[in-house]
Amino acid sequence: MKELEEKINAEGIVAEGNILKVSSFLNHKIDVPFMNEVGKEFYRLFQNDRVTKILTIEASGIGIACLTAQYFNVPVVFAKKSKSKNLTDDVYATEIASFTHKNTNQVIVEKRFIQPEDRILIIDDFLAKGNALKGLIQLTQDAGATVVGAGIVIEKAYQDGGKLIRDTGVRVESLARIASMSPETGCVFLHD
Amino acid sequence: MKELEEKINAEGIVAEGNILKVSSFLNHKIDVPFMNEVGKEFYRLFQNDRVTKILTIEASGIGIACLTAQYFNVPVVFAKKSKSKNLTDDVYATEIASFTHKNTNQVIVEKRFIQPEDRILIIDDFLAKGNALKGLIQLTQDAGATVVGAGIVIEKAYQDGGKLIRDTGVRVESLARIASMSPETGCVFLHD
Repeated sequence: MKELEEKINAEGIVAEGNILKVSSFLNHKIDVPFMNEVGKEFYRLFQNDRVTKILTIEASGIGIACLTAQYFNVPVVFAKKSKSKNLTDDVYATEIASFTHKNTNQVIVEKRFIQPEDRILIIDDFLAKGNALKGLIQLTQDAGATVVGAGIVIEKAYQDGGKLIRDTGVRVESLARIASMSPETGCVFLHD
Repeated sequence: MKELEEKINAEGIVAEGNILKVSSFLNHKIDVPFMNEVGKEFYRLFQNDRVTKILTIEASGIGIACLTAQYFNVPVVFAKKSKSKNLTDDVYATEIASFTHKNTNQVIVEKRFIQPEDRILIIDDFLAKGNALKGLIQLTQDAGATVVGAGIVIEKAYQDGGKLIRDTGVRVESLARIASMSPETGCVFLHD
């Protein structure tokens, strides 16, 4: 998505340690009118897949998932990162390691919110090593539901998460795929 | 908002310990078409207030904030609960105690995302003791920006947070105000 690549290079900050900060439009401040266009693009890509629910993970995925869901006219379910007393024990759970935060979270979804007949579109802001996406696929499969695919805003295509997950047969659509990046040159994008 | 009150009594679960679970439409599964109507109602209430940004706090506030923001055609900023290495030190910070999770979080917003000329509408899912709302007002005031008001989906009006904050002169609009609730009777709403 050309407008997204332009926005990443205009507003994104590449920092030491393989960090891309897009907090000006994606994961701290959210450019809602722009993210609506991202949501429309996910709809264009998956509109024929009879999506019944969008699954994401807190926190950064929630905004883009909600803006996308309105085009599909379906609900969002967001996996939660820790066990609150507001949740029952009747949950699917998996462990997800975070590259950014250097920790591992138990992630849960209440069982009643994913049914075997559901056709799940997974939406997330980033794909790098693929840990979050693998976890969300696992939760969907635990529920006996169908993963129709994953819509990712930014993929770090020089890391192996996308390849590993595509190799399992899951359709992954990333709107911007970064081939390489550095503080000096910014991001170079992959088109294939 | 009558449809919201009906939805709370149809789908909400009142549990022991003063807990209202609305995870079927608000804070785990999000009923996006319904929450769009909630967003339109916030727009109706604040449309003449020259809102420039919507401020909320992760995680449950993000979805409703994004769906609301599109009617105002403004961005969302969500305060973050802990310090990630993706954030600079150039932040406003405050402490917010959580009733639900029985803990206290440091909450931060990057300074560049709230400017003195901003007119901030705060959006959140719940108001009870008012700790989150007080924290978000504090962050806005630290930035020298204007709080035009707060839009709350569900207020536990039998707790004192709403009164305390209204007494400081901040306009608080809650779409459902719970006067009392119990596992036996469900929720009784306040209309004034």
